Amino acid sequence: MPSPLLAPLFGSPAMEAVWSDAATVAAMLAVEEALAAAEAEAGVVPAAASAAIAAVVARRGIDIEALADAAGMAGNTAIPLVKALTAEVRAADAEAAKWVHYGATSQDVMDTGLVLQLRSAFRLIEVDLARAMAAAAALAQAHRDTPMAGRTWLQQALPITFGLKMAGTLDALMRHRDRLAEARPRILALQFGGAAGTLASLGATGPEVARLLAARLDLSLPETPWHGQRDRILEAASLMAGLVASAAKVARDVALMMQTEVGEVLEPAAPGRGGSSTMPHKRNPALSATILGAAGLAPQLLATIAAGGAGEHERAAGGWQSEWLALPELARLTGGVMARLAELLEGLEVKPERMRANLGATGGLLMAEAVQMALAPALGRLAAHDRIEAACRKAVGEGRDLLDVLAEDGEITAHAPRDRLAELLDPAGYLGSAGFFVDRVLARYRAV
Amino acid sequence: MPSPLLAPLFGSPAMEAVWSDAATVAAMLAVEEALAAAEAEAGVVPAAASAAIAAVVARRGIDIEALADAAGMAGNTAIPLVKALTAEVRAADAEAAKWVHYGATSQDVMDTGLVLQLRSAFRLIEVDLARAMAAAAALAQAHRDTPMAGRTWLQQALPITFGLKMAGTLDALMRHRDRLAEARPRILALQFGGAAGTLASLGATGPEVARLLAARLDLSLPETPWHGQRDRILEAASLMAGLVASAAKVARDVALMMQTEVGEVLEPAAPGRGGSSTMPHKRNPALSATILGAAGLAPQLLATIAAGGAGEHERAAGGWQSEWLALPELARLTGGVMARLAELLEGLEVKPERMRANLGATGGLLMAEAVQMALAPALGRLAAHDRIEAACRKAVGEGRDLLDVLAEDGEITAHAPRDRLAELLDPAGYLGSAGFFVDRVLARYRAV
Amino acid sequence: MPSPLLAPLFGSPAMEAVWSDAATVAAMLAVEEALAAAEAEAGVVPAAASAAIAAVVARRGIDIEALADAAGMAGNTAIPLVKALTAEVRAADAEAAKWVHYGATSQDVMDTGLVLQLRSAFRLIEVDLARAMAAAAALAQAHRDTPMAGRTWLQQALPITFGLKMAGTLDALMRHRDRLAEARPRILALQFGGAAGTLASLGATGPEVARLLAARLDLSLPETPWHGQRDRILEAASLMAGLVASAAKVARDVALMMQTEVGEVLEPAAPGRGGSSTMPHKRNPALSATILGAAGLAPQLLATIAAGGAGEHERAAGGWQSEWLALPELARLTGGVMARLAELLEGLEVKPERMRANLGATGGLLMAEAVQMALAPALGRLAAHDRIEAACRKAVGEGRDLLDVLAEDGEITAHAPRDRLAELLDPAGYLGSAGFFVDRVLARYRAV
Amino acid sequence: MPSPLLAPLFGSPAMEAVWSDAATVAAMLAVEEALAAAEAEAGVVPAAASAAIAAVVARRGIDIEALADAAGMAGNTAIPLVKALTAEVRAADAEAAKWVHYGATSQDVMDTGLVLQLRSAFRLIEVDLARAMAAAAALAQAHRDTPMAGRTWLQQALPITFGLKMAGTLDALMRHRDRLAEARPRILALQFGGAAGTLASLGATGPEVARLLAARLDLSLPETPWHGQRDRILEAASLMAGLVASAAKVARDVALMMQTEVGEVLEPAAPGRGGSSTMPHKRNPALSATILGAAGLAPQLLATIAAGGAGEHERAAGGWQSEWLALPELARLTGGVMARLAELLEGLEVKPERMRANLGATGGLLMAEAVQMALAPALGRLAAHDRIEAACRKAVGEGRDLLDVLAEDGEITAHAPRDRLAELLDPAGYLGSAGFFVDRVLARYRAV
Repeated sequence: MPSPLLAPLFGSPAMEAVWSDAATVAAMLAVEEALAAAEAEAGVVPAAASAAIAAVVARRGIDIEALADAAGMAGNTAIPLVKALTAEVRAADAEAAKWVHYGATSQDVMDTGLVLQLRSAFRLIEVDLARAMAAAAALAQAHRDTPMAGRTWLQQALPITFGLKMAGTLDALMRHRDRLAEARPRILALQFGGAAGTLASLGATGPEVARLLAARLDLSLPETPWHGQRDRILEAASLMAGLVASAAKVARDVALMMQTEVGEVLEPAAPGRGGSSTMPHKRNPALSATILGAAGLAPQLLATIAAGGAGEHERAAGGWQSEWLALPELARLTGGVMARLAELLEGLEVKPERMRANLGATGGLLMAEAVQMALAPALGRLAAHDRIEAACRKAVGEGRDLLDVLAEDGEITAHAPRDRLAELLDPAGYLGSAGFFVDRVLARYRAV
Repeated sequence: MPSPLLAPLFGSPAMEAVWSDAATVAAMLAVEEALAAAEAEAGVVPAAASAAIAAVVARRGIDIEALADAAGMAGNTAIPLVKALTAEVRAADAEAAKWVHYGATSQDVMDTGLVLQLRSAFRLIEVDLARAMAAAAALAQAHRDTPMAGRTWLQQALPITFGLKMAGTLDALMRHRDRLAEARPRILALQFGGAAGTLASLGATGPEVARLLAARLDLSLPETPWHGQRDRILEAASLMAGLVASAAKVARDVALMMQTEVGEVLEPAAPGRGGSSTMPHKRNPALSATILGAAGLAPQLLATIAAGGAGEHERAAGGWQSEWLALPELARLTGGVMARLAELLEGLEVKPERMRANLGATGGLLMAEAVQMALAPALGRLAAHDRIEAACRKAVGEGRDLLDVLAEDGEITAHAPRDRLAELLDPAGYLGSAGFFVDRVLARYRAV
Repeated sequence: MPSPLLAPLFGSPAMEAVWSDAATVAAMLAVEEALAAAEAEAGVVPAAASAAIAAVVARRGIDIEALADAAGMAGNTAIPLVKALTAEVRAADAEAAKWVHYGATSQDVMDTGLVLQLRSAFRLIEVDLARAMAAAAALAQAHRDTPMAGRTWLQQALPITFGLKMAGTLDALMRHRDRLAEARPRILALQFGGAAGTLASLGATGPEVARLLAARLDLSLPETPWHGQRDRILEAASLMAGLVASAAKVARDVALMMQTEVGEVLEPAAPGRGGSSTMPHKRNPALSATILGAAGLAPQLLATIAAGGAGEHERAAGGWQSEWLALPELARLTGGVMARLAELLEGLEVKPERMRANLGATGGLLMAEAVQMALAPALGRLAAHDRIEAACRKAVGEGRDLLDVLAEDGEITAHAPRDRLAELLDPAGYLGSAGFFVDRVLARYRAV
Repeated sequence: MPSPLLAPLFGSPAMEAVWSDAATVAAMLAVEEALAAAEAEAGVVPAAASAAIAAVVARRGIDIEALADAAGMAGNTAIPLVKALTAEVRAADAEAAKWVHYGATSQDVMDTGLVLQLRSAFRLIEVDLARAMAAAAALAQAHRDTPMAGRTWLQQALPITFGLKMAGTLDALMRHRDRLAEARPRILALQFGGAAGTLASLGATGPEVARLLAARLDLSLPETPWHGQRDRILEAASLMAGLVASAAKVARDVALMMQTEVGEVLEPAAPGRGGSSTMPHKRNPALSATILGAAGLAPQLLATIAAGGAGEHERAAGGWQSEWLALPELARLTGGVMARLAELLEGLEVKPERMRANLGATGGLLMAEAVQMALAPALGRLAAHDRIEAACRKAVGEGRDLLDVLAEDGEITAHAPRDRLAELLDPAGYLGSAGFFVDRVLARYRAV
């Protein structure tokens, strides 16, 4: 978890707030309050007790530092919280104190509190995801026909458009949005099972209390308590790690395109950002680097959560405890990553002239496929490939333009004279279905 | 990837077959064949050439060993495969050879081939998932009312039923089934973009060829080529790692319940299974241990795939290559895990009498909550908790039954005389909503 | 990183202090101060400037909150720290301000500051490691001859002693101590290279300044700046993850031995520790569970650091940034784990009588090997194995003691009459070299 | 694990041979043979039996396919191997068959066999490590004074030399060599404990047999069996993952330097390597990409092994099983990586002229620090920084050379006239201690 010193680098203020200790405690208290209210509604708990508990929760008087000290001994945060809450309620209304946390266990409060925090986290993520999608869509539209080098294995391969690159990002982000929508009701589910998952202490009213509690918290009501089955948590982690990976893909490309020798895009400028303490001329890909830095942790946090899923019996000794650290950290990093992704895409400076210039860097080699494909019908795909490959080698070896080399080969000019070759070597004329793909992605974006 | 020696331990024969080198090559060849056919249908390639290519593919004459050697130099498997295929086609029909792999790039063939293998893998997974669900459902039904100790933090906590434990597993498996169904069309999508994602070499017919190709392969047609966006692959990996984690949860519990001192279940017996070379009396949890062994790798393979998602530009130099190793390995392990999970659940021997005996191990301590809840209305939750806790300490300290200790406390017997206390201490009377939850999960299972 | 609420659960106060933001800033300032002093000694910087810088550093007036905000923009923590320090020095002595951070780059200060923190962390780790070794040694000595069940695959296998178990732990901890001693000078090395690793801005005095700076900070002087080579950091991470893994091994065994059905050890009691909010009778393995919880993250933090090692060129955009989060978190978790391990071993309650009772749980099956080995010379190892295995199956199937079954087999009693069989079935008589191994480990422990 | 199709891409033939199933079986048989011999020497086993066992082992007649099938049931590979070996020995000499595997357990044979394979693996790694070091040393020497751009955050920062870059690599590789030497005796240690670690079945002769067995296998004799303590295995994994990470660092830099727009190095050419199926002009960084691909798995395999270390009691049900897959895979990947690293460095084509040309790409901006440092004594470090930063912005904004912009600023020319500025802007004149560092690293390399 970023320390306060690093939080502004890796986190986002809104997401930090969701996972602050105060918010964690508030979420657990919200569960306690809703529990008492649901139990009052079910006739298990006196209405006055429920009201007294709500009044104490509303006061927000829990001392988090004392709670932390007690948690160190108790082994979790819910036990001392319940103690502290009960003490406060008792001070106000001794009778009501008997009904605090009634029928619940620590994990009910911790897991359901966590789900409430996840709901807030998802909302923030969706806002930044929407911003990122809108920005990617705008870039895809604006640069629908801006040619640049497509690069494979870090080598220039064929021309693409910057719009196509952005459309690919937009398409992936839309898939993430769909996944999030599908998973939301599964993940945002009440956990309520009592000490071992039977709600035994509530007797026959258990299911009814659970139903009312889920309704009050606006959470899904699961078929059975899920304390021992962590697939919902893993699903949440997978979604977040997936978003981070797609954001990191953007950051990787931006950092590469910002290289001194490439210079095709610039991260949004901001006073004080990306400077160097000793090199005044640099414009570091600071947003991209922090996204990539966070992306170095997300897969492993996901792995921690996946590995922790095989917990022991009805409540684990180890795997669940790992989640307490890993899931909030993953959510905080995801929040920071998504905020930076939105900022990065919204303010990205694109340099079409550098893109165009870089297309010429290979003296036409980049367009070899265009020539090859034009000649393939006549020569056969493989023969054309071999012939062009030889010409490319010659052009590289002798430091000449590919056009000049090709124009010397009679067998080639028999099918394509020099003028036609020059035409074939123009990147803007060999963009294939790039525009079509951009349009199709944008159409889907706009349709939703 | 399990070596041949370890494959029977960790893999399943059917899944091993899906990911054999022969199957990998066959999947790529199926893409090449369908590509030529789609291009013939679109009028790009002569029908005779398409037929010639199909004929060669049908012959299955590719020498995999030679291919492997060439792949080591070429940097991937598709380049030498296309060369070998072209050579074979040329031997049969020189003209047709010109049209092999026409308009495609290595990654198109490798990614789409991978998707075809994933489809086969999903089918196998679903079969074993269905078996595991059916077995879990049968166990949940049969043991709906079989009491056993619920255990939290590896300590006996409260009675549950073995049916409830199995219902939790069934519920999780059903969620995995739902996730798989949702993700299937996203994952099983054609990848076809040509050298850099524009299908440039196909001119205006690119999208039409793509549409026909997707239809022939019965794959989704994506909005845009996805070679640079690996979220579909990550989604597949997340699904598989999620299944493994839930299977590992079962294996963990089985291994713990099989402990000599616990003895509540036995893995299915089979000649030669789980014996020890030196200890003739042992019955090792061999299925569970191999599931758990595989589960030690799955989270990390998922992390590898998540981390590889941030590849460079239009085709990565590193992350994509990691996928070649990690995804098949994850699928193979998942196949083995799911087959073992089904076998384990189908043949699990349950020992209700040991479950019942273990419930008595604490001399009533396990039922402390029942007494506490019964007294809470009168004494208040916290006071009841403290009073019972003291009685438990005394019982432990003096090595006595809890009933005897409780019956000495006048304040307690004032609210619950000894007879009532004895009743409260009977586990079978304190199972809460266990049966209700089992029924609800089974109802959902049967409804689909 | 544990939030303040979770820090008492997973961290240790001393280690938390080492990695607090204040300590991080102090470490970087210590580098700046030593740098100015070394440069003054080398004649590069005026002595008065060095003194002025030292005076400002001594004041500890840096506003960490403001620093954090600025770091969010600057992309790292050193840039704003240098700015703030320079501003403070300028306020005191305008001339001296020119010499702040002279010849250094951000990474010099951050990496060397990190190394200073690692040195403090190692000291704390070594203290707790020494405590844990002493406690393990004491337990090994005290229980040199305390028989208990050795368990393989979670099944009782053969008798061992609790002393042998502890000797294995002690032996592993001693190996970690040795590794730490070997790695210490490699890890605790100065990083000082200036903007790109050439110390260009210091002209010919670069190496001399580096030498003096290393001496002042009492760090190793490396052959060349190592900013781009992160193997030292990975080595530190490996050491810490190794310690955590060995501690987790202890915690795993303790948690298993504390199971209600096993009851062979208890974690040290402390008021408020390990209780349950609803189950007054439980004594949760709270120390072990938090060790195991932390151990769920350590391997993945190690993986993050290993993966980040392949950074770009002279300073990475991503991998290095991951380290900022991952290494302090790993160190903090390691600190917490080692403190808990020491506490756990120092206060462990051992129950020899339960160990002895559990040895009898199998009705003699556990001692099958003893009988088998005694019969092997006469019958052959495999024949003896098969014969005893059959007897074991019969004993299990009929619910009888192994002794009775064996005594019925004439071929067996021909070589070992019932009395001899009873002797062979006594666990205390079949402890092999357990005592010898304990003594040898303790001898090595005492020799150092 | 690479399948046969991918093995030539990711593995090395020699390392594949070390970890082949045949080699795995041979290593275990070598342990069985040495065990019988040691026991004969200790007087436990008849000399004739030992000779008979050796004769059968020498025949190498074990059917690996049958073994694999049996392993799937037995739960490990040693049990069916011992059975098969015993059957073969029995066929030759019924009496000798009684003494096969005498006093040992499966894990003894598997762990010690693994250690023997690790020893072979280390030898191969050291050969390739030595090759890589020699090649790096030669490159460092040859390019001691070849200027190139140092790059931080993927931006040109300051000039360095290619020799310095290689010296950094060499330095890291030497540290790995040292680590390997230190760890070797710890890792290459006998595991021999019998069923639960007491060597009970050998009575009083256990330690003597262990000593003789270690001597025969030329392995360290540990203080106590280490089956339950996996730190040695983790140490081996850490060493290998560390090597992979340092190799990946080289591969990352090579892939980046090979970019079309950078072109400073080329991977060694080889017929058929790194070509593209559709783009005849490309020279893909195929070696680097496979190194980076393998490097995507190594950290996670390390994490798997670290996480598996917390196994249950005297033999784990899960973590140990994970090792069976993860450690050989890590070793195989490491073998492939090290072989490729050696090949890459030995054949690297360096383009000093492109390095020099790229140094000019920023119109002098890269040399801003040189000017800043020259002006710092007069203006103060921060003021100089700000002034030069402003000039750089102006140069960038107006697309002019930095020299021209600087020469307009009277305050600057007051301290450094245009001629002096031009001198300051020459990269070759601002290489600082690069040569010194190269020499120091090479001196250490040559000293060993």
